[in-house]
Amino acid sequence: MSTDCLFCRIVAGEVPSTKVYEDADILAFLDIGPVVKGHTLVIPKAHHDPITGTPRDVLHLLIDAVQRIAAAQLGGLKADGVNVSQANGRAAGQVIPHVHFHVIPRFAADGHHWNWSAKKYDGAQEMQEFAARIAGALAP
Amino acid sequence: MSTDCLFCRIVAGEVPSTKVYEDADILAFLDIGPVVKGHTLVIPKAHHDPITGTPRDVLHLLIDAVQRIAAAQLGGLKADGVNVSQANGRAAGQVIPHVHFHVIPRFAADGHHWNWSAKKYDGAQEMQEFAARIAGALAP
Repeated sequence: MSTDCLFCRIVAGEVPSTKVYEDADILAFLDIGPVVKGHTLVIPKAHHDPITGTPRDVLHLLIDAVQRIAAAQLGGLKADGVNVSQANGRAAGQVIPHVHFHVIPRFAADGHHWNWSAKKYDGAQEMQEFAARIAGALAP
Repeated sequence: MSTDCLFCRIVAGEVPSTKVYEDADILAFLDIGPVVKGHTLVIPKAHHDPITGTPRDVLHLLIDAVQRIAAAQLGGLKADGVNVSQANGRAAGQVIPHVHFHVIPRFAADGHHWNWSAKKYDGAQEMQEFAARIAGALAP
Protein backbone atom coordinates (compact mmCIF):
# COMPACT_ATOMS: atom_id res chain seq x y z
CA MET A 1 0.00 0.00 0.00
CA SER A 2 1.09 3.50 -0.83
CA THR A 3 -0.24 5.98 1.74
CA ASP A 4 -0.08 8.72 -0.89
CA CYS A 5 -2.31 6.78 -3.27
CA LEU A 6 -6.03 7.62 -3.29
CA PHE A 7 -6.99 4.16 -4.51
CA CYS A 8 -4.90 2.45 -1.83
CA ARG A 9 -6.69 4.63 0.72
CA ILE A 10 -10.04 3.56 -0.74
CA VAL A 11 -8.95 -0.10 -0.50
CA ALA A 12 -7.96 0.51 3.14
CA GLY A 13 -11.34 2.09 3.87
CA GLU A 14 -9.76 5.45 4.75
CA VAL A 15 -11.65 7.08 1.89
CA PRO A 16 -15.25 6.01 1.25
CA SER A 17 -16.39 4.50 -2.01
CA THR A 18 -19.56 3.08 -3.48
CA LYS A 19 -18.61 -0.54 -3.98
CA VAL A 20 -19.86 -2.67 -6.83
CA TYR A 21 -17.71 -5.77 -6.28
CA GLU A 22 -14.98 -6.91 -3.93
CA ASP A 23 -12.92 -10.03 -3.36
CA ALA A 24 -9.53 -10.77 -1.86
CA ASP A 25 -7.61 -9.20 -4.74
CA ILE A 26 -9.97 -6.87 -6.60
CA LEU A 27 -12.16 -3.89 -5.78
CA ALA A 28 -14.73 -2.33 -8.11
CA PHE A 29 -16.45 0.92 -7.20
CA LEU A 30 -18.28 3.75 -8.91
CA ASP A 31 -16.31 6.62 -10.42
CA ILE A 32 -17.57 9.76 -8.65
CA GLY A 33 -17.37 11.66 -11.94
CA PRO A 34 -19.03 9.23 -14.35
CA VAL A 35 -18.82 9.70 -18.11
CA VAL A 36 -22.14 7.82 -18.00
CA LYS A 37 -23.88 6.89 -14.74
CA GLY A 38 -22.83 3.41 -13.63
CA HIS A 39 -19.20 4.07 -14.72
CA THR A 40 -17.17 1.67 -12.61
CA LEU A 41 -13.48 1.51 -11.73
CA VAL A 42 -11.82 -1.89 -11.36
CA ILE A 43 -8.56 -1.96 -9.41
CA PRO A 44 -6.23 -4.46 -7.78
CA LYS A 45 -6.12 -4.10 -4.00
CA ALA A 46 -2.33 -4.26 -4.18
CA HIS A 47 -0.60 -1.20 -5.54
CA HIS A 48 0.64 -1.71 -9.09
CA ASP A 49 1.16 0.79 -11.89
CA PRO A 50 1.00 1.10 -14.85
CA ILE A 51 -0.34 -1.86 -16.85
CA THR A 52 3.22 -2.70 -17.91
CA GLY A 53 4.23 -2.98 -14.24
CA THR A 54 1.30 -5.18 -13.25
CA PRO A 55 2.01 -8.88 -12.66
CA ARG A 56 0.34 -11.17 -15.13
CA ASP A 57 -1.77 -13.00 -12.54
CA VAL A 58 -3.12 -9.68 -11.24
CA LEU A 59 -3.81 -8.51 -14.79
CA HIS A 60 -5.83 -11.66 -15.41
CA LEU A 61 -7.88 -11.11 -12.25
CA LEU A 62 -8.49 -7.51 -13.34
CA ILE A 63 -9.69 -8.38 -16.84
CA ASP A 64 -11.89 -11.17 -15.45
CA ALA A 65 -13.54 -8.63 -13.16
CA VAL A 66 -13.86 -6.15 -16.04
CA GLN A 67 -15.64 -8.81 -18.06
CA ARG A 68 -18.04 -9.58 -15.22
CA ILE A 69 -18.77 -5.90 -14.53
CA ALA A 70 -19.39 -5.30 -18.23
CA ALA A 71 -21.88 -8.17 -18.31
CA ALA A 72 -23.56 -6.85 -15.17
CA GLN A 73 -23.88 -3.36 -16.67
CA LEU A 74 -25.49 -4.84 -19.77
CA GLY A 75 -27.82 -6.96 -17.65
CA GLY A 76 -28.43 -4.83 -14.57
CA LEU A 77 -28.53 -1.41 -16.19
CA LYS A 78 -29.93 -2.61 -19.53
CA ALA A 79 -26.99 -0.87 -21.20
CA ASP A 80 -26.72 -1.04 -24.99
CA GLY A 81 -22.93 -1.25 -24.90
CA VAL A 82 -19.87 -0.90 -22.72
CA ASN A 83 -16.57 0.95 -23.07
CA VAL A 84 -13.48 -0.41 -21.36
CA SER A 85 -10.71 2.13 -20.98
CA GLN A 86 -7.35 2.14 -19.24
CA ALA A 87 -4.79 4.94 -19.21
CA ASN A 88 -1.08 4.80 -18.46
CA GLY A 89 0.82 7.99 -17.75
CA ARG A 90 -0.18 11.63 -17.58
CA ALA A 91 0.23 11.90 -21.35
CA ALA A 92 -2.57 9.35 -21.65
CA GLY A 93 -4.82 11.20 -19.22
CA GLN A 94 -4.14 8.99 -16.20
CA VAL A 95 -4.89 10.89 -12.99
CA ILE A 96 -4.45 8.29 -10.22
CA PRO A 97 -1.22 6.28 -10.63
CA HIS A 98 -2.66 2.93 -9.47
CA VAL A 99 -3.56 0.67 -12.38
CA HIS A 100 -7.31 0.80 -13.07
CA PHE A 101 -9.82 -0.09 -15.74
CA HIS A 102 -12.82 2.11 -16.46
CA VAL A 103 -15.94 0.13 -17.34
CA ILE A 104 -18.51 2.54 -18.74
CA PRO A 105 -22.08 1.55 -19.58
CA ARG A 106 -23.30 3.06 -22.83
CA PHE A 107 -26.80 3.79 -24.04
CA ALA A 108 -27.86 4.60 -27.59
CA ALA A 109 -29.15 7.98 -26.41
CA ASP A 110 -26.60 8.79 -23.69
CA GLY A 111 -25.33 11.78 -25.67
CA HIS A 112 -21.65 10.91 -25.26
CA HIS A 113 -19.44 10.68 -28.34
CA TRP A 114 -15.73 10.00 -28.04
CA ASN A 115 -13.55 12.40 -30.03
CA TRP A 116 -11.99 9.52 -31.91
CA SER A 117 -9.99 11.63 -34.38
CA ALA A 118 -8.43 9.24 -36.87
CA LYS A 119 -5.22 10.50 -38.47
CA LYS A 120 -3.48 9.18 -41.56
CA TYR A 121 -0.02 7.79 -42.15
CA ASP A 122 2.21 9.32 -44.80
CA GLY A 123 1.96 6.16 -46.87
CA ALA A 124 2.71 2.47 -46.41
CA GLN A 125 6.39 3.00 -45.69
CA GLU A 126 5.69 5.10 -42.61
CA MET A 127 3.27 2.44 -41.37
CA GLN A 128 5.93 -0.23 -41.82
CA GLU A 129 8.42 1.90 -39.92
CA PHE A 130 6.06 2.33 -36.95
CA ALA A 131 5.21 -1.37 -36.92
CA ALA A 132 8.89 -2.28 -37.04
CA ARG A 133 9.76 0.05 -34.16
CA ILE A 134 7.04 -1.50 -31.98
CA ALA A 135 7.76 -5.08 -33.06
CA GLY A 136 11.47 -4.56 -32.50
CA ALA A 137 10.85 -3.52 -28.89
CA LEU A 138 8.60 -6.46 -27.99
CA ALA A 139 9.80 -8.43 -25.00
CA PRO A 140 10.79 -11.98 -26.00
CA MET B 1 -14.14 -17.48 -38.98
CA SER B 2 -16.90 -15.23 -40.14
CA THR B 3 -16.55 -14.40 -43.84
CA ASP B 4 -18.44 -11.16 -43.27
CA CYS B 5 -15.98 -10.01 -40.62
CA LEU B 6 -13.21 -7.63 -41.69
CA PHE B 7 -10.91 -8.77 -38.88
CA CYS B 8 -11.44 -12.44 -39.72
CA ARG B 9 -10.52 -11.59 -43.31
CA ILE B 10 -7.37 -9.85 -42.09
CA VAL B 11 -6.49 -12.95 -40.02
CA ALA B 12 -7.05 -15.10 -43.11
CA GLY B 13 -4.78 -12.84 -45.17
CA GLU B 14 -7.61 -11.87 -47.52
CA VAL B 15 -7.25 -8.24 -46.48
CA PRO B 16 -3.75 -6.85 -45.95
CA SER B 17 -2.58 -5.43 -42.64
CA THR B 18 0.61 -3.99 -41.19
CA LYS B 19 1.45 -6.59 -38.56
CA VAL B 20 3.08 -5.78 -35.26
CA TYR B 21 2.82 -9.18 -33.57
CA GLU B 22 1.41 -12.59 -34.36
CA ASP B 23 1.24 -15.97 -32.67
CA ALA B 24 -1.06 -18.98 -32.92
CA ASP B 25 -3.96 -17.21 -31.17
CA ILE B 26 -3.36 -13.47 -31.39
CA LEU B 27 -2.78 -10.90 -34.11
CA ALA B 28 -1.72 -7.29 -33.56
CA PHE B 29 -1.65 -4.82 -36.44
CA LEU B 30 -1.73 -1.08 -36.99
CA ASP B 31 -5.06 0.73 -37.10
CA ILE B 32 -5.19 2.41 -40.52
CA GLY B 33 -6.83 5.46 -38.94
CA PRO B 34 -4.63 6.02 -35.87
CA VAL B 35 -5.65 8.39 -33.09
CA VAL B 36 -1.88 8.68 -32.64
CA LYS B 37 0.60 7.04 -35.03
CA GLY B 38 1.56 3.60 -33.75
CA HIS B 39 -2.05 2.89 -32.67
CA THR B 40 -2.28 -0.90 -32.65
CA LEU B 41 -5.25 -3.28 -32.65
CA VAL B 42 -4.96 -6.54 -30.73
CA ILE B 43 -7.42 -9.28 -31.71
CA PRO B 44 -7.94 -13.00 -31.22
CA LYS B 45 -7.58 -14.97 -34.43
CA ALA B 46 -10.77 -16.81 -33.57
CA HIS B 47 -13.99 -14.83 -33.94
CA HIS B 48 -15.38 -13.74 -30.58
CA ASP B 49 -17.51 -10.75 -29.68
CA PRO B 50 -18.00 -8.78 -27.50
CA ILE B 51 -15.77 -8.94 -24.43
CA THR B 52 -18.59 -10.62 -22.51
CA GLY B 53 -18.72 -13.38 -25.11
CA THR B 54 -14.97 -13.99 -25.15
CA PRO B 55 -13.69 -17.13 -23.39
CA ARG B 56 -11.55 -16.43 -20.37
CA ASP B 57 -8.43 -18.09 -21.77
CA VAL B 58 -8.67 -15.99 -24.93
CA LEU B 59 -9.22 -12.85 -22.86
CA HIS B 60 -6.06 -13.60 -20.90
CA LEU B 61 -4.05 -14.05 -24.09
CA LEU B 62 -5.44 -10.76 -25.37
CA ILE B 63 -4.58 -8.75 -22.27
CA ASP B 64 -1.11 -10.33 -22.14
CA ALA B 65 -0.53 -9.15 -25.71
CA VAL B 66 -1.93 -5.71 -24.87
CA GLN B 67 0.55 -5.45 -22.02
CA ARG B 68 3.46 -6.43 -24.26
CA ILE B 69 2.42 -4.04 -27.05
CA ALA B 70 2.07 -1.22 -24.51
CA ALA B 71 5.57 -1.88 -23.22
CA ALA B 72 6.90 -1.99 -26.78
CA GLN B 73 5.23 1.34 -27.62
CA LEU B 74 6.82 2.91 -24.55
CA GLY B 75 10.19 1.43 -25.43
CA GLY B 76 10.22 1.36 -29.21
CA LEU B 77 8.38 4.61 -29.90
CA LYS B 78 9.61 6.39 -26.76
CA ALA B 79 5.96 7.09 -25.93
CA ASP B 80 5.18 9.00 -22.73
CA GLY B 81 2.04 6.99 -22.05
CA VAL B 82 -0.40 4.49 -23.49
CA ASN B 83 -4.19 4.32 -23.74
CA VAL B 84 -5.91 0.95 -23.82
CA SER B 85 -9.46 1.09 -25.11
CA GLN B 86 -12.04 -1.52 -25.95
CA ALA B 87 -15.61 -0.93 -27.16
CA ASN B 88 -18.60 -3.25 -27.07
CA GLY B 89 -21.65 -2.46 -29.14
CA ARG B 90 -22.53 0.35 -31.51
CA ALA B 91 -23.64 2.50 -28.60
CA ALA B 92 -20.05 2.31 -27.33
CA GLY B 93 -18.61 3.25 -30.73
CA GLN B 94 -17.63 -0.27 -31.77
CA VAL B 95 -17.37 -0.48 -35.57
CA ILE B 96 -16.03 -4.00 -36.23
CA PRO B 97 -17.91 -6.66 -34.24
CA HIS B 98 -14.86 -8.85 -33.48
CA VAL B 99 -13.47 -8.25 -29.99
CA HIS B 100 -10.42 -5.96 -30.14
CA PHE B 101 -8.28 -3.82 -27.90
CA HIS B 102 -6.88 -0.49 -29.08
CA VAL B 103 -3.38 0.19 -27.76
CA ILE B 104 -2.57 3.84 -28.43
CA PRO B 105 0.85 5.39 -27.78
CA ARG B 106 0.62 8.84 -26.24
CA PHE B 107 3.08 11.71 -26.25
CA ALA B 108 3.01 14.78 -24.06
CA ALA B 109 2.70 16.97 -27.15
CA ASP B 110 0.55 14.71 -29.37
CA GLY B 111 -2.30 17.22 -29.29
CA HIS B 112 -4.99 14.64 -28.51
CA HIS B 113 -7.29 15.18 -25.54
CA TRP B 114 -10.10 12.77 -24.77
CA ASN B 115 -13.46 14.44 -24.18
CA TRP B 116 -13.73 12.83 -20.76
CA SER B 117 -16.86 14.68 -19.66
CA ALA B 118 -17.48 13.76 -16.04
CA LYS B 119 -21.10 13.97 -14.93
CA LYS B 120 -22.49 14.02 -11.40
CA TYR B 121 -24.87 11.75 -9.55
CA ASP B 122 -27.96 13.20 -7.92
CA GLY B 123 -26.55 12.40 -4.49
CA ALA B 124 -25.36 9.34 -2.62
CA GLN B 125 -28.66 7.50 -2.90
CA GLU B 126 -28.56 7.48 -6.69
CA MET B 127 -24.98 6.17 -6.57
CA GLN B 128 -26.08 3.38 -4.23
CA GLU B 129 -28.92 2.50 -6.58
CA PHE B 130 -26.61 2.23 -9.59
CA ALA B 131 -24.09 0.16 -7.65
CA ALA B 132 -26.83 -2.15 -6.43
CA ARG B 133 -28.22 -2.65 -9.93
CA ILE B 134 -24.78 -3.63 -11.24
CA ALA B 135 -23.85 -5.72 -8.22
CA GLY B 136 -27.21 -7.48 -8.33
CA ALA B 137 -26.58 -8.57 -11.92
CA LEU B 138 -23.07 -9.96 -11.35
CA ALA B 139 -22.67 -13.54 -12.42
CA PRO B 140 -21.97 -15.82 -9.44
